[in-house]
Amino acid sequence: MEIKVLRKILSHNEHQAENNRDIFHKHGIVVINMMSSPGAGKTTILEGTIDRLKAKYKMAVIEGDLMTSRDAERIHNKGVPVVQINTEGGCHLSAGMIYKASHELDLENLEIIFIENVGNLVCPGAFDLGENFKVVVSSVPEGDDKPLKYPLMFQEARACILNKVDLLSHTNFNLHNFLKDVYSLNNKGTVLQLSATAGTGFDDWCRWLEGEYQWELAKKHGK
Amino acid sequence: MEIKVLRKILSHNEHQAENNRDIFHKHGIVVINMMSSPGAGKTTILEGTIDRLKAKYKMAVIEGDLMTSRDAERIHNKGVPVVQINTEGGCHLSAGMIYKASHELDLENLEIIFIENVGNLVCPGAFDLGENFKVVVSSVPEGDDKPLKYPLMFQEARACILNKVDLLSHTNFNLHNFLKDVYSLNNKGTVLQLSATAGTGFDDWCRWLEGEYQWELAKKHGK
Repeated sequence: MEIKVLRKILSHNEHQAENNRDIFHKHGIVVINMMSSPGAGKTTILEGTIDRLKAKYKMAVIEGDLMTSRDAERIHNKGVPVVQINTEGGCHLSAGMIYKASHELDLENLEIIFIENVGNLVCPGAFDLGENFKVVVSSVPEGDDKPLKYPLMFQEARACILNKVDLLSHTNFNLHNFLKDVYSLNNKGTVLQLSATAGTGFDDWCRWLEGEYQWELAKKHGK
Repeated sequence: MEIKVLRKILSHNEHQAENNRDIFHKHGIVVINMMSSPGAGKTTILEGTIDRLKAKYKMAVIEGDLMTSRDAERIHNKGVPVVQINTEGGCHLSAGMIYKASHELDLENLEIIFIENVGNLVCPGAFDLGENFKVVVSSVPEGDDKPLKYPLMFQEARACILNKVDLLSHTNFNLHNFLKDVYSLNNKGTVLQLSATAGTGFDDWCRWLEGEYQWELAKKHGK
């Protein structure tokens, strides 16, 4: 019963996601869906990314949270357009929510939209939002066993950011096992090590991001 | 549509949860539903709790994970009965899953059952499993903003364990704000500070747990 219902919701969502993808595509916007556990550091990573790339690209952020607009305020302070979605208890963003939120943005004047999904390592992985690609953020204090325990996220993501590597020496996190497990789930993905608070690893992440942006644009022009 | 469906699932779940509660009650078992984000430290806390209390109480654990039986193996190594539930993608345990799992346990010979829910700070809060009470584990590296962003968990729990306090000095976690926010959501709850890996704070947690165990038994006898 539960599964049958989920299928119906998923197929409605897929239809809306394709619609979103068309809209973003027509405007030449590359959309990135950022997913993680609560507190893995998505907002801090976005703050650092905006600081480094906002002179070069016209960016906006769609923020998903159950409650509060704290993250949206943090992004707003970085000087880029932001739309807050409050799911009011909902455990993931849906394509319909993104469709509505995109009406609050000036799509004519954007090149990159980051979607910060609800902090949840389970449900967001099953919902296409119409993004170009997904990025999963995992963090050192969560432990090295997360990829195998929450495989869908790591399978779906084009890159995995391992955040809070400044805490490696204060935990029993086994980097070798983590990398081995991520690549066993997804051998085409990239793993980027980062400490958003210490500011390390941003160069590699931004370089990767710009490469993917160019690749997505080239695909569009090739169509 | 989505909400209507969720209501139907919830009411089916509530019925099954009451059934579970009756069964556990008849056997004089106190059941504790442990919830948290992925990697907040539920399993490590249970390992430490079992070490300290297994000579005194007959305990068992029901382990919920999307995939793998790693946590169940860790609990098994502590010498108490454990049942693994793999939700295969499902984002929370349901009362029906607990009902089935309880058939794998010798209820005649148990006093306390810990349920370790799927690592998810959203969905498990909405599903009664037939437990006596819920405990939410939050951890320092997740940040001090989690209570207001994921309020249901903190409202539903009788106690909040703040784990990984050994990392307080390595993060910008504001303990004052965290405590203020937890108590603003739930002024009857208890907050217990702990470091499961360093082994600190277990005395207070175990003392609190034993008090609640006695209180639950007294309520039962009073019926």
